[in-house]
Formats: sequence, C-alpha cells, structure tokens
Amino acid sequence: MPEIRKDYVIESQWVVISPERNLRPSDFKVPKVDKNNAEQCPFCPGHEFMTPPEILAYRKDGEKNSGGWWIRVIPNKYPALRIEGDVNYKENKVFRKMNGVGAHEVIIETPEHYLKPYELSDYQMHEIIHAYIDRFVDLTNDKRFKYILIFKNYGKDAGASLTHPHSQLIATPMIPRIISDELYGAKKYYINTAGRCIYDEIISMEKEKGERVVAESTNFITICPYASRFPFEMWLLPKFHDSRFEKISLNDDLVWEFGRVLKDALRRLFAAVPDVPFNYYIHTSPVNTKNEYRYYHWHLEIMPRLSKPAGFEWGTGFYINPMPPEKAAEILREK
Amino acid sequence: MPEIRKDYVIESQWVVISPERNLRPSDFKVPKVDKNNAEQCPFCPGHEFMTPPEILAYRKDGEKNSGGWWIRVIPNKYPALRIEGDVNYKENKVFRKMNGVGAHEVIIETPEHYLKPYELSDYQMHEIIHAYIDRFVDLTNDKRFKYILIFKNYGKDAGASLTHPHSQLIATPMIPRIISDELYGAKKYYINTAGRCIYDEIISMEKEKGERVVAESTNFITICPYASRFPFEMWLLPKFHDSRFEKISLNDDLVWEFGRVLKDALRRLFAAVPDVPFNYYIHTSPVNTKNEYRYYHWHLEIMPRLSKPAGFEWGTGFYINPMPPEKAAEILREK
Repeated sequence: MPEIRKDYVIESQWVVISPERNLRPSDFKVPKVDKNNAEQCPFCPGHEFMTPPEILAYRKDGEKNSGGWWIRVIPNKYPALRIEGDVNYKENKVFRKMNGVGAHEVIIETPEHYLKPYELSDYQMHEIIHAYIDRFVDLTNDKRFKYILIFKNYGKDAGASLTHPHSQLIATPMIPRIISDELYGAKKYYINTAGRCIYDEIISMEKEKGERVVAESTNFITICPYASRFPFEMWLLPKFHDSRFEKISLNDDLVWEFGRVLKDALRRLFAAVPDVPFNYYIHTSPVNTKNEYRYYHWHLEIMPRLSKPAGFEWGTGFYINPMPPEKAAEILREK
Repeated sequence: MPEIRKDYVIESQWVVISPERNLRPSDFKVPKVDKNNAEQCPFCPGHEFMTPPEILAYRKDGEKNSGGWWIRVIPNKYPALRIEGDVNYKENKVFRKMNGVGAHEVIIETPEHYLKPYELSDYQMHEIIHAYIDRFVDLTNDKRFKYILIFKNYGKDAGASLTHPHSQLIATPMIPRIISDELYGAKKYYINTAGRCIYDEIISMEKEKGERVVAESTNFITICPYASRFPFEMWLLPKFHDSRFEKISLNDDLVWEFGRVLKDALRRLFAAVPDVPFNYYIHTSPVNTKNEYRYYHWHLEIMPRLSKPAGFEWGTGFYINPMPPEKAAEILREK
C-alpha cells in the first residue's frame, strides 16, 4: 500500500510514497550530458573576457579579470533580475507587482572544466562555501533585498546550460513562497511546543529511527526526508541550531566540515546514479527584515531530477515518489 | 525592466515576468512526440482486453469491454493510489501520514488514436466533459475522498507516456497544497471585501483591461493570467460564480459551451506553438467536507511545458517566465 506523508514543516505539502514498483537506481535513465568543450567555455581560465567583469575572485596575484583565480564570481549574463532601480511596489486589488530588481550571480567553482561535483578537493569545497558566504554577506548590505538563494543546477535536465562547475545566487526583493511556507510551519511548531525548533525535532527523531540517515559528522547530519518528493532527495542539516547559514563563517572549522559533508553527499548520490542531474539550494533566513526567525534552522536540500512532474503534481503540488526514502537512504549509506 | 508579480490568489506566489528577451513562439523548441502506434495501443478499439476492466463507457450497444464506445473510462494500470483500504491517519510530532487510498482513472477521450486535442468534434468535447462529471459525481459518493483532480498530460515533456488522446482523474483522501493555498487566498479576499469573490474580481478587472483576454463566450472567459508562471499559460473561468465544477451538468448548454471553449483554447495554443506539450487541470472545491467554499470559483488552467524549472524555481517556488502574458494573449487572440 502506498503511503501519503506530510512534509515535516510545510502546511498541506503531501507526498505519495509508492514503494511497490521496487525500483533500483539503475531503473533511472540519465540522459548523456552535452559537454560543451573547454575551448569555447566562458568559465574557463583565459576566457575571462567572455564574461561580464568579475564581482569577486580568489587569486594570489594577477590582474582582475585575468587568470590565476581558483574561485571567480561574475554577474549572470542573462539575469532574471536587474541590479539597478527601486522596488516600487504597486497594488490594485488583484494586481500586485514590483520592479524586477535583484542580483543574479554565477559562482565559478573551479578553473577545471571537466571535474564532477564530488571530484573537487576538500580545499576547493571550503573555498566555494567561503565564496557563498562572501557574496551573501555583501548582498545583505543592499537593503532592497529580502531573500538570497544560493543554488546549483547540474546537468541539462536540472536546468544547467553550461558544463563547467558553477553555482548561482539570486537575491530577491521579497520572500519567496516556499521560504514563506517553511517559516510559517517552523513558527507554528515553535509556538505549539513552547519554543522547540521543528528542525531540531526532526534531527532527534530521525537519529532515533536511523533508517533515513545517510551520514553524520560532528556538526551535520544528512537524511533522506520522511516525505521526500523525489528519489534520492537529501537534506543536509546542521546539528546545532542556527537560523542563518552565513554565521558558519564565524568558525572556519564549520566551513571546512560543511564542504566535506556536501561533497560526501554528492559522492554518494553519483555512486548510486552516475552523473545524475540535480539541483541543490540553501534555505536560510530572509535578510533585512526586523524579524529574527529564531524558530528557523538553515539547511541545504539536494533534489535529483529523476522523475518528471506532470499534470497531477502541477495541479495540486502533491508529489508521487516511486522511491521510499528509507530505501534511498539505505542505498546511499552503503556507497 | 522585468516585473515581479504576485499570483492573484495564492499567498507569496510570485513570478518574474521578464519581457526583455523578446521571444517569439518559434523560439520554443518542441521535441518530436514519440507516437506509439495504434497497433500496440491499449486505448484503441479492439484492444479493450489490454486494459483493466472499464469503469464507464459511452456506447450505443455492444458488450462491456468490447468495441463500439466513443468514451471509455478505465482504472490506471499503474495507479499512484489504491482504491482499497482505510485512510488511517497517523501522527507522531513531525511524522504525519495516511494510507495511499484513492482512485486513479484514465478517461479515453475518443476511439481515434491520431487526433490532436483541438481536432475532436464539438460533440466529442461535450462527451468528454460529460464523462469528467459522471466520474466526479460517482467518486464523491466515496466519503474517504476529499479532493478529485481531473487533468490531462499531452506530450512526453508534459508526462504523457501514451499518444492516444486521454485525460486522467485522481481522487485523494486529503486536500492538496495548491488547492489549500487557493482556498486560503480566496477566503481572505472574501473576508476583506465583505463577501466579494476574488475570481469575479479578476474577471471584471481583466475584462476592463482587455490586454490579457484571449477569448470570451457567453458564459466563459479565457485569459493569460497576470502572474503567468509559464509562457502561454491560460485560465478558463466561468463568468458566473460557482464553486463546484460538477454543477455545470445541471445545464447541458453549459457543458457544450465549456467543451467548445476548451477546444478553442487548445486550438489557439497549437496554432501558436505546434504540438506543444501541455498539462491542463480543473480546480474545483473539495468534496465531502462540511465547508461550502462559497468564496471559491472553479476554473481550468492550461500549462504549456515550454520552460524547465531549475534550482531557483524548486528552491523558492518563485518562477521566471520569459513571455509576458500580455504578449502571449495578443498572439493567442490572433490565432
């Protein structure tokens, strides 16, 4: 019998867990990645002129917008939102809008074109996380922005148009829906339990059960969430309570550890389903608001793109997942 | 400058409308449909033995599960939910689940394998809508079900695995998230305006503006919604206020008219982007609940599958749409 499970946090977010088809990782077909080659890649060293001028780069010496870097951050050439202008919110009954101001940046994760996500060194992972925080903190100084999403698309089916390892960042002038929904769910739990964090509860209950735990380090835990929407969905949660991702920069050991934990999760994922297209994103507190979001708990979600939402999912927001998270976790644990 | 717009109804549902790339319909590439042929099609007449026994069929004479039908409804061979069993809701702090009971049916829309959605006769459209209502009403008698979604997947990229024209229906034991969100938004507007329906407001404001109206008949209006998530997204709204789709069966003229309006919208869509993969679904009130949902207003949404959500959309629920609805409506109006 399939089960219908509710997301831990989000109100009305239900998922059908349908174990009966008894899928193995090899049942998921991954389309061949269209490897655009290094010669024409705008993210490769020596091609700095092909991108807009850099916002940030980690390099020992050398000129801006030249080689020698190991991390480089540039504005997205085709930004979804524009950096100039006022928000200028307008409302007329059912019509509500604001100007599309925001930031859209690309974090080039390494000079090496052909590396897979799990092939980066621990040092490079540390530098990537560091760059995420650098840009996050800098953008919070812009008071127009209310939310900053750091995310990665890997593979064509996950929306990546370039092969060269990169992540992205989008700053928005409002708090997006899913964030809003999570904050609402976390706040409700906090109030109902006289001050308990729902994510702390998840961690403690999942550790007790064990069956959905993929890996654990001193300060982080990787689980396949109870109401996983997609096969091999993983959440990386800090075991210490903090609502703000950027605060791990206060302890450089945590930055190292988080980089290793992320790499470990991606290594396991690729060992289960080679070259799987995936997205990950960091969910953290909104910025530039009076609210402290004490009840919230930052985390990273990895979403492999192995099943295609269709009319039912689009029409209801209710997902059908053919791979129970207990089984996914078991497979990932063994890798 | 791109604009950020809020969905009329859903709290925190925002969309970036990004007109600057100035796309034309021909900029959207549609993958060739993998036409599985009629000889092996389980939905073709003469192949009734290839499907589970029928639930309903419209035929003049002839045996059950034989030919002679013009509409045939069967259980889905690979159902997401199972018809047998109790709901059996269980809760333990962050773990909440119920059994995957529900119905999952396929409505075979015509005996003719190769017809495009807009090539069906007006009579056949009437019969399809009639079958939707027949099944909807029958399933509401099952008190375990709280929601019934009628939907269609067309084309591989929209999740259709078979070419033969068909729709689907899924009955669920809970109210799914997007429905919940719409009900919440509609209720809030109703309360804030001392009893005004938000969809009536949308219709009146969109008619006044005109720029997003695609077509209008005596009792229905087709618009590209203000905060369209996808290029050529369309909503078909009844101009009379009613929270329940199935009630159009009380006036057979309305069933005819709705069939013609739906066909007209699909014809326009295919004229703009030939053979575009799409989903449509009917949003109507939940069933078997004490609530009357007086503030709600049923409608049908058509979602062409021309842009691929990636990490940003998945991480935030915030969409980036490269085709302004005003332009989409203009193109569709002229077809």
